[in-house]
Amino acid sequence: MDYPWEDLTLSFSRTSMFPFFDIAHYLVSVMALKQQPGSVTVAWNNPLSSWLSAMLHCFGGGILSCILLAEPPLKFLTNHTNILLASSIWYIVFFCPRDLVSQGYSYKPIQMLAAGMKEVTRTWKIVSGVTHASSYYRNGWIVMIAIGWARGAGGAVVTSCEQLLRGDWKPAGNEWLKMSFPSKVTLLGSVLFTLQHTQHLAVSKHDLMFLYTIFLLMVKVRMMIKKNIPITFAPIEDTLSRMLFGWQQQFSWAEKKPDVKPSSNGTASSVSKPTTEGPGAAKRHAKKED
Amino acid sequence: MDYPWEDLTLSFSRTSMFPFFDIAHYLVSVMALKQQPGSVTVAWNNPLSSWLSAMLHCFGGGILSCILLAEPPLKFLTNHTNILLASSIWYIVFFCPRDLVSQGYSYKPIQMLAAGMKEVTRTWKIVSGVTHASSYYRNGWIVMIAIGWARGAGGAVVTSCEQLLRGDWKPAGNEWLKMSFPSKVTLLGSVLFTLQHTQHLAVSKHDLMFLYTIFLLMVKVRMMIKKNIPITFAPIEDTLSRMLFGWQQQFSWAEKKPDVKPSSNGTASSVSKPTTEGPGAAKRHAKKED
Amino acid sequence: MDYPWEDLTLSFSRTSMFPFFDIAHYLVSVMALKQQPGSVTVAWNNPLSSWLSAMLHCFGGGILSCILLAEPPLKFLTNHTNILLASSIWYIVFFCPRDLVSQGYSYKPIQMLAAGMKEVTRTWKIVSGVTHASSYYRNGWIVMIAIGWARGAGGAVVTSCEQLLRGDWKPAGNEWLKMSFPSKVTLLGSVLFTLQHTQHLAVSKHDLMFLYTIFLLMVKVRMMIKKNIPITFAPIEDTLSRMLFGWQQQFSWAEKKPDVKPSSNGTASSVSKPTTEGPGAAKRHAKKED
Repeated sequence: MDYPWEDLTLSFSRTSMFPFFDIAHYLVSVMALKQQPGSVTVAWNNPLSSWLSAMLHCFGGGILSCILLAEPPLKFLTNHTNILLASSIWYIVFFCPRDLVSQGYSYKPIQMLAAGMKEVTRTWKIVSGVTHASSYYRNGWIVMIAIGWARGAGGAVVTSCEQLLRGDWKPAGNEWLKMSFPSKVTLLGSVLFTLQHTQHLAVSKHDLMFLYTIFLLMVKVRMMIKKNIPITFAPIEDTLSRMLFGWQQQFSWAEKKPDVKPSSNGTASSVSKPTTEGPGAAKRHAKKED
Repeated sequence: MDYPWEDLTLSFSRTSMFPFFDIAHYLVSVMALKQQPGSVTVAWNNPLSSWLSAMLHCFGGGILSCILLAEPPLKFLTNHTNILLASSIWYIVFFCPRDLVSQGYSYKPIQMLAAGMKEVTRTWKIVSGVTHASSYYRNGWIVMIAIGWARGAGGAVVTSCEQLLRGDWKPAGNEWLKMSFPSKVTLLGSVLFTLQHTQHLAVSKHDLMFLYTIFLLMVKVRMMIKKNIPITFAPIEDTLSRMLFGWQQQFSWAEKKPDVKPSSNGTASSVSKPTTEGPGAAKRHAKKED
Repeated sequence: MDYPWEDLTLSFSRTSMFPFFDIAHYLVSVMALKQQPGSVTVAWNNPLSSWLSAMLHCFGGGILSCILLAEPPLKFLTNHTNILLASSIWYIVFFCPRDLVSQGYSYKPIQMLAAGMKEVTRTWKIVSGVTHASSYYRNGWIVMIAIGWARGAGGAVVTSCEQLLRGDWKPAGNEWLKMSFPSKVTLLGSVLFTLQHTQHLAVSKHDLMFLYTIFLLMVKVRMMIKKNIPITFAPIEDTLSRMLFGWQQQFSWAEKKPDVKPSSNGTASSVSKPTTEGPGAAKRHAKKED
């Protein structure tokens, strides 16, 4: 039974992302750009600017990991094949007669297929990020986690910066640092692959790639089918928080700080408020704050 | 006839920018800084901050190309001669008794001479940028174009970021990405020199440097003489847009997008609206939108 | 008499910052973070974001100097011991039962001891910055001064950028470039150590480290005892300004610029207004503007 499994996971890990999975990734990224208000007008008036935004959306994670490792941020421009592919996707998405591509993309099965294939590329990016960072710092496991995370989910950071510079987005409060669900999932994957790389996890890389990708796909499909019931890590986060930060409740009793904003942040973020789950007698007070 | 031409262009390409052309470039840059509201007060109250802004204005293009190639952004500070020259220019511009330098600069012939000499340095910067990038990525022609562009016209990006950090400038909408005419001219030059470098253009480097510089000077002189009739690439851009994006008009008929802002962007930006020039029957509808 | 002095300064210069001085530095930095409005709530709701902010506060100077020298900004994450130490400090400061650490820190002697030890680390950072830059650019004394300054006082720049990205801070006017007193003191130290390194100052490194640290400690203790009488370099700055920029007053007579804001900037910044100290007859006019 092992051997077919080995064959399956090995073949899977050797699949090339080019061209089909890359196409799906670029398509989802450029469609996300297109759905921003005003992006179509920008494409008509200033195609170069629109093309640049599209490249940042498609290659943002790689650009961020280059910046963090002091490699040239323009390195992605040397891969002419992928640039040509991404540019073609941008071109047909924005300038297709009768907007055929957008209309085709609006069908749910097409969206789910593209999103699923994009999630597969996420695994590849995390793995390549961890491996690349380990070539710089052999034992720098924190750096490996950070670079794996940047490659897998850093695109959002780069595009937010671009919007900030364009004046289309103003960070409000801690919005910048609220981790989206894809971001948390990528961090989890980065930790797992780093543990595997430093041989703290007794599983082979190809097996982990396969299992993690299956997990990503299941989560993505469920999220797209049942949009009104979001998936969060809340139960796990609650447990972790209780273990690590559980005595915060006593802290909040001892010091009433004027800068505590009880419920607003708690509902907005999907991280649970550890203070509300403090041990024992703190529970009643916690319920009042909720 | 060839030999005198060869001699002329060769001698021209071997001209050193130091010191006279560099002086002109620093003078124009520092005078541009001085004309910003509040800059004189800053120079009086916080000379170090004013000096830093002046350095960013003078060396901004080089700093940006260093950042894009992951070289130390402070590298420009190692060229002590140029730093001393630029600092001296800053000093006499801001602190000259009776503001003699600014008064002298207000004479049109002086401005035209300085601006013309600054345009000559633009050619040298583009060439050095393309050559430098090719030493990193031998076949990376997109990177060469980008670095040539950054060296030649990237100063505006760096000074805008500095103003953003200082709170003196807030990007509004797509202002950040509207390319100014110098920016477009630099991009054109960067493309030409890259094509020449990769031997896709059958012209020697010194000939191209000479011809491009003559073109820059003619354009600059005309712009300074006839300020109310701006030069744009609009005819060329219209043609290119029609060829590449011509069928957008059918697109706009099929989908009425609420984020289309018909005329305001068209007049503000010097890039023509390709949609208004769609083939055939689209022309009448285009005229209505203009 | 020399030998005990030599021994004293040599032993002092060989003192390791780890662990006690580093602990003091991390404690002061994390307490500074904790005193920002809303930081406690962030720590409860999004511990990862709070931890990241704490790391930026603790290692900001090193991160900035890495960026300026095109080294990986994540390099600080490879020093696992210091990361663990800083993370522990963050943990006990934010999550200690009954907030014991903050209460302990509120006692003046504890604050003074921690602040004094942090000032000692400032000397070490400046020295390591100057030495590190000299390994890149042997004769680049401006770069050495800049990197020494960045390491010693650059943390404020990094944390301001982080707050800017978070939306918690908007730069207003030239606030960004008003140098705080610690910043000026660090610049002075950086200049001194660079002069010593390039052998323009006839004093050994360990002697200079000792003397500069004593100076920092005296200044810090005096500032903490007499908070209402701030220390400035105003007398020295006045003298320097009069020498370098003294003739500005004639300039202001010749050109009345509408963007001169006479008294507001002068009182806000601790840099004197050189124009108010112009030679001779300019004094009366200066007094009117003050």
